[in-house]
Amino acid sequence: MPISEFDLIRRWFTRPVQRAVLGVGDDCALLAPTPGMQLAVSSDLLIEGRHFISTVPSERLGHKALAVNLSDLAACGAKPVAFTLALAMPRIDEVFLDGFSRGMYALADEHQIELVGGDTTAGPLAIGITVIGEVPPGAALRRDAARVGDDIWISHPAGAGLGDARLALEVFRGTLRLGAQAFERTRARMEMPTPRVALGLSLRGVAHAAIDLSDGLLGDLGHVLRASAAGARINVDAMPRSADLGAQSPATQTLCLLAGGDDYELLFTAKQQARDTVRAAAAAAGCAATCIGAIEQTPGLRVVNAQGASVDTSMLAAFDHFSA
Amino acid sequence: MPISEFDLIRRWFTRPVQRAVLGVGDDCALLAPTPGMQLAVSSDLLIEGRHFISTVPSERLGHKALAVNLSDLAACGAKPVAFTLALAMPRIDEVFLDGFSRGMYALADEHQIELVGGDTTAGPLAIGITVIGEVPPGAALRRDAARVGDDIWISHPAGAGLGDARLALEVFRGTLRLGAQAFERTRARMEMPTPRVALGLSLRGVAHAAIDLSDGLLGDLGHVLRASAAGARINVDAMPRSADLGAQSPATQTLCLLAGGDDYELLFTAKQQARDTVRAAAAAAGCAATCIGAIEQTPGLRVVNAQGASVDTSMLAAFDHFSA
Repeated sequence: MPISEFDLIRRWFTRPVQRAVLGVGDDCALLAPTPGMQLAVSSDLLIEGRHFISTVPSERLGHKALAVNLSDLAACGAKPVAFTLALAMPRIDEVFLDGFSRGMYALADEHQIELVGGDTTAGPLAIGITVIGEVPPGAALRRDAARVGDDIWISHPAGAGLGDARLALEVFRGTLRLGAQAFERTRARMEMPTPRVALGLSLRGVAHAAIDLSDGLLGDLGHVLRASAAGARINVDAMPRSADLGAQSPATQTLCLLAGGDDYELLFTAKQQARDTVRAAAAAAGCAATCIGAIEQTPGLRVVNAQGASVDTSMLAAFDHFSA
Repeated sequence: MPISEFDLIRRWFTRPVQRAVLGVGDDCALLAPTPGMQLAVSSDLLIEGRHFISTVPSERLGHKALAVNLSDLAACGAKPVAFTLALAMPRIDEVFLDGFSRGMYALADEHQIELVGGDTTAGPLAIGITVIGEVPPGAALRRDAARVGDDIWISHPAGAGLGDARLALEVFRGTLRLGAQAFERTRARMEMPTPRVALGLSLRGVAHAAIDLSDGLLGDLGHVLRASAAGARINVDAMPRSADLGAQSPATQTLCLLAGGDDYELLFTAKQQARDTVRAAAAAAGCAATCIGAIEQTPGLRVVNAQGASVDTSMLAAFDHFSA
């Protein structure tokens, strides 16, 4: 007997309600917001071939689908509360669903949030998640809050930086080769990004503007500059990078660092006097932060190297989901 | 020059913020919930060929994608506040987007709600909307609140009932023919459902259980009965129907009334003493409501005709998005 949509939801996507008033299984979920808090809401839709490739194990896909949404909350300094899942898939595949739900719930448990509702349907594989978080009024980190003179920071793991996800993608595309261990390391960064939720929370009142790096540094920093009506200068040589990326050609390094996409690190700005506070906040959140440049009055983004010479970025387009 | 994802969002999906603290264009939207209210949240994903057919004009599709989500809020008695849109489409089609956004915003304006965020990407056409509404604590209409002895009601337009959407679908499928005017009427009910938001609000404190009819009466009433651990008896001859459906064969009428899907009317239960209140609530909400049966202690659903004879529904499966 085939598994019905109803059975599917019950078997893979229903767990006892934790904090919600009403969870999966009614027309709506019901949540009781914390008095005095504002809600932060974000929706992301992941499509096979655009946001992930078919080789990704479903457990990692379940992790990533939730992680990219949590990353949006992190970029606003919001504390995650709950999420919904809208899942289209060609057929009911028990192995896929076992892995997908396991990966998704593992990350949800890590952040003590719960799946409260959603929708499943047959269709080309697509994963839509909406996350809801909370933030005190006025405390949200926004794209439009960068100020002239601010340092520009990126978060990253100790010993690595941006670009590993793009490096792995290039191996999948066949344009580069890596040794087996290096490939596994970079692939894990592409398929299992770490949303910087703890860092986002500890940057409340410290950072001015913030954004998560999903489409590549050039494009995402560009959003901050447009929203803040400012310019910036960044030093590409100041950007930390993994040993795997550091072993690549200079052109590959520049591509992966500046136009990589899928990093899911935070880019944020803060006043120069806050440097110690920023480093302490990152350490407390289990990651590192490196200052890579400064916000300037002059519009536009200037990328330079350690010698102050201009780096040509004209060939590096930001990731665009309609042209990539 | 091709339209970028950024330009797409700015051109078709960005309007001045109304009540939200922060709308489209940052990592998250920010909302300030009304103090003391609970949040009702629902997500639906619409896939071409499953939830709509390719012949639907995009303005109607924009209406329907939002309407089916508002219908979930209506079924909970929640007041709509805001929504997010995750849209995958094969390419940026200006004519499609003009129509889609016009239809979506027209319905949003009617309910005084705003689009606060979302995501766009290339991919097979898929529309994921998450709606957020508000409801006082304890006031939400739930599937599990039906009580033995309750009347079972359905909402409907004056002069019509359930099943017109399914009737139109059968014409599209080529199994039935209708005159041009009848086809246009039934097609409009399939493509432009009216979410019963006002009715849901006026049923707070009046109705016990409620659900919206999206997958067909048999399946949706079955959800209420399972959740409420009760049975029911309904009289198919008591069910109102349009003249267009009434002109069909008895078998077609039964199919469309009981297993139609896409009605987006409310099914709800209320105590017998509330009949006048229910009719007044429906009239105030601009629709009609008809009592079609009663909740009973004996488990299972019994469908009878006006003479009390059993109607065989064994061939009528509820709509299932993995087998239909």
